[in-house]
This record gives sequence, C-alpha cells and structure tokens, in this order.
Amino acid sequence: MTTAPGLLLGGIEAGGTKFVLVTGISPQKIVARHSIPTTSPAETLAHAADWFKSQGPLSALGIASFGPVDLNPASGTWGHITQTPKSGWSNCNLAGFFAQEFGVPIGFETDVNAAALAEAQGEPSETTLAYITIGTGIGGGLVVNGLPIHGAAHPEMGHIYPRRPENDRSFPGICPYHGDCLEGLASGPAILARWGKSLSDLPSDHDAHGIIAGYLAQLCHMIFATVSANRIILGGGVMQTPGLIDHVRTHAARLDSGYLPGGTQHLINPPVNGGHAGAVGALLLAEKARLAKGSRAAGRA
Amino acid sequence: MTTAPGLLLGGIEAGGTKFVLVTGISPQKIVARHSIPTTSPAETLAHAADWFKSQGPLSALGIASFGPVDLNPASGTWGHITQTPKSGWSNCNLAGFFAQEFGVPIGFETDVNAAALAEAQGEPSETTLAYITIGTGIGGGLVVNGLPIHGAAHPEMGHIYPRRPENDRSFPGICPYHGDCLEGLASGPAILARWGKSLSDLPSDHDAHGIIAGYLAQLCHMIFATVSANRIILGGGVMQTPGLIDHVRTHAARLDSGYLPGGTQHLINPPVNGGHAGAVGALLLAEKARLAKGSRAAGRA
Repeated sequence: MTTAPGLLLGGIEAGGTKFVLVTGISPQKIVARHSIPTTSPAETLAHAADWFKSQGPLSALGIASFGPVDLNPASGTWGHITQTPKSGWSNCNLAGFFAQEFGVPIGFETDVNAAALAEAQGEPSETTLAYITIGTGIGGGLVVNGLPIHGAAHPEMGHIYPRRPENDRSFPGICPYHGDCLEGLASGPAILARWGKSLSDLPSDHDAHGIIAGYLAQLCHMIFATVSANRIILGGGVMQTPGLIDHVRTHAARLDSGYLPGGTQHLINPPVNGGHAGAVGALLLAEKARLAKGSRAAGRA
Repeated sequence: MTTAPGLLLGGIEAGGTKFVLVTGISPQKIVARHSIPTTSPAETLAHAADWFKSQGPLSALGIASFGPVDLNPASGTWGHITQTPKSGWSNCNLAGFFAQEFGVPIGFETDVNAAALAEAQGEPSETTLAYITIGTGIGGGLVVNGLPIHGAAHPEMGHIYPRRPENDRSFPGICPYHGDCLEGLASGPAILARWGKSLSDLPSDHDAHGIIAGYLAQLCHMIFATVSANRIILGGGVMQTPGLIDHVRTHAARLDSGYLPGGTQHLINPPVNGGHAGAVGALLLAEKARLAKGSRAAGRA
C-alpha cells in the first residue's frame, strides 16, 4: 500500500523486548507514542504498520534498531537485521517492509547510533559523542563530526573485555560468545544472574554497586582514550540505579589518573532526552531521509 | 624570515628521539629525507629550519608531532606541544616557530593521526582506519570519513587497561601514570625493563611473544568493538619482531570469537608506507594546508 506523503515523521525504536513507535512533526515535537511487545517479526511489524496507519500519512520513517544490522547502503541487505540470537529475527528486512508498506523514505541505524545522534543535537558539530545503553544488553553508538560511526559494520562496545579486579574474578559472566566481556558482567541480566536482584534493588552498601561502576568506568576510560570523546552518555535501565553515574565518574577519574589530554572536557552524563533518546533519534533519521528525499526509498521499494 | 612560496612540500615527523624531515613534490613523491636527534627545542627546531632552507623554498609545511598536542584551531595554543614529561618540550610552539620561519601554511597533527591519514590514502573515504605505533611508547591515531579524530583533544590509545591473563599478573608495568596500562606493559621500554632484551632479541619460543601479542590483540579487539574499524595498522619498532603480527591476529580472532559484525572486514595489517607513514602523513598535512591556503598560516604568523 502506498500512502501519499504527509508532514508527519514516523519513528521506530526497535528493541528486543518492545518496539516504541512515535510520530512527530519534527524530531523535537513528538505527537504520539505507542509501545508494542516484540513477538514474531510478522506480527510485530504488522502491528507497527497498523498503528502508524491510524496516525495519518507519514512523510518519512526512521528505524533505530537492535542489532546486528546491515547499515551499508550499497549492500543488498541494507536495512536488515543480520545474524541475531533473537529467535526468528535473523535476516529480517525491517527497512524493506516499511518502505513497501508506506512508500516513503526510510532512515535506518542502530538504536544506539540513533540515540547518539539525538544526544548530539545542540552540541557543536565537532563534538565526539558516545551513547551507551546498559540494560538487557550493553551497546554503544558513536557520533563523529555529526555522523554516526559505521566502519566495517557498527560499534558493539558491550563486548570489550574489562579488567577483572582482584576481588572479583570468580563470576564467569553470561555472554554466550565471550563469557565475562562487559555485557556478560554488567548488563541487567548479568546482575540478576549473579545477585538475584536488579542493581537498584540491592542495598546501597552492597559490593555490586562498586563492581558494576568499575566495569562501566573501564568502558568510559577506553572510549576517552580511543576516540577522545567529549561526551559519554549513559542510558538504559541499569543506569536508573540511584548514584550509579557518580560512582562511574569517580572510578573513571581514578583510571585516567589525570593523564588524558582534554581532561575536564571529557564528560560522563545521563541522556538529555531521558528514556526517549532512541525515539528522538529515530525521528531524526526520518527527517534526514525526508531531506535526502526518495533516493533510498525509491531504490529499495 | 619569509621565503617566497615554491612548489616543495615540507614534512616533519617530530618524535621524542628524532625528528625526521622530508621534502616532496607531492606526499607520494619524497625528494629528500634527513634525520636529526631530538635535543632541546631551540636547537632541534633551528637544525630543522636550517635543513629545510638548504632544500629550496617551501610552499607549505606539515608537522606530525609526538604529543600531547593542541589540535584545536580556535585555541590560542594551537600547534603547541602541551604538557609532556619530555624535559623542556612542554608548551613548545612547534607550528608557530615554523610559521614564523617560513611564512607558509602549516598543517599540524599528532604523529599517529598523520600516519593514519597516510595509510588511509587509496582506501574508500568511508574506511575507518586506526594506526597504532608500538615503540618507545604506544600511540594510536584514527581516521573516520577521511578526517583524523580530535574530539576533546586526540586519542591516547596506549593508555587503555588490557586484562592481565592469569599467568601474567606480577609485572607492575612502567607507565608513570597507570603502571600496567598497555604502554606500561607492551611498549619497547616495558619489554626491555621486564626481560632485559627487545622482543626481537628474545628466542622465538619465549613466553614474551605470546604475552605481548595478547596485549596488543586486546587493543585491536577494543578498536574493532568501539569504532568497527575496517583496518588496524600496526607500526613501530616492536612490530618489526618476526611473526608478531600473525600472533596478534590469532589472539584477536580468539577474543572476537566470531561475534563482531563486519567479521572478515576487520583487518590487522602492517603499514603500506613501512616506516615512512608518519613522514608521508606530514606531507599530506602540508598539501592540505597549502590547499586551505594561507588562512591558518596568515592567522598565526
């Protein structure tokens, strides 16, 4: 079905647990928001399409997706989720489905790159900004000179190997690929597997707070050392834990030890967009796709 | 003194041990090369200026410098080395000295960012490429979409904390800031302090080879995970050790465990420019400065 282009932008934050759907008259002006559970691709995508159709004609749609995804515009599988452990979702042609349904330009990015774009709005264009989500998994996006990083595919920052401190070497981690990589140690499910509770449900004097902050600080130090980021934004469910971000800052400063040039210009902050960074990012992708009008959608539909 | 602009490009690879001076009619066509020891700033810069004057008039000069340096064109100390442990060199106005001496446009970068630019020549512009030097220190530069990364200052990749394997936790490392960060563990001086010999002088069945390769592989994995680099170029004296790069590749593949999207597109290579990546990069900076003609030199002279 092809709907005549209207003024409304559509945005999808496609997560492994839920899809957040938004419409906006601009990325900053969200008009409506709706959330649906992530079930099978066929069901989830049909639900999403139905909701957008009930909102009025779209002029463009942005998709901020869980990964891994294909971001290469020259690839035959651009806009697909590639190989994911999430049952049924491997090789799902997300962008193609919505291009076909709506016949509008489609923007496509990783969820965290889109969130990084949203957080970089209002910053000088030369700002290097990383957006990290610490939740069901740990993922990172990166914006440099106003553009999200792709490289060979896209960042997967959750899978670095933080150093294990002397007093914390026994937990084997839960990452099926790497065991005790960062995601295997400090994601929500890792915390639950280890201590039987979420971090925010553990007493504030529990060792877990320092241990998790220490691991996240290692990611921050690594990002500062590698790309000299001006801003690291920490979002996601685990970061809702009171006091955690201050803990991370303290640990990161200790790791740096006053060495890195740029010192006080390296900031660790919560998202300006709160829990909406991904959705705002999806609308930014839609706006960008609308500006680059038609070229991609026409080529793909 | 002001020399009338000729066609010759000048390049300086300013290192802590020596300054490599080159002239070229293009970055690819080096005409002459000269090396001087790094002594005091006054003496070293005067020697460098004298040599360039003996080569004929320059049209632009590129400087690829050891760091930390100020790369911010809006800063009053752009083109300076900032705070360095290298005696006498803190706050040295490298770019200003040569702008004054030659009255030509000056390009200025970190040595490793310049080397990354040199190595990225001939690659598609969307290639994300990291250049790492493993020598007296460990440093990394990064080119994204054809531009070197600055962010809050510039990368300092040698100062990440690799995980210490179980059989190698006693050596405390030699970094004055971080002890056993990567530079403290795997730089040339760290290897010498630990085993009394350079890596290439140790027998090929010595544990050191696997240990050092493992640490360098952790940096590679971290770069692949963080910026999804297409290419990691490993240069510097330590990398002259026969077999080391293959060792690093093997370890890095083991760390990845087949997870990262982009898989076989992540390559670890020796420099195409051999030991000349920094010098070629300096000439690229000169060429770029000449194209952006006068604006910077005029503003700074």
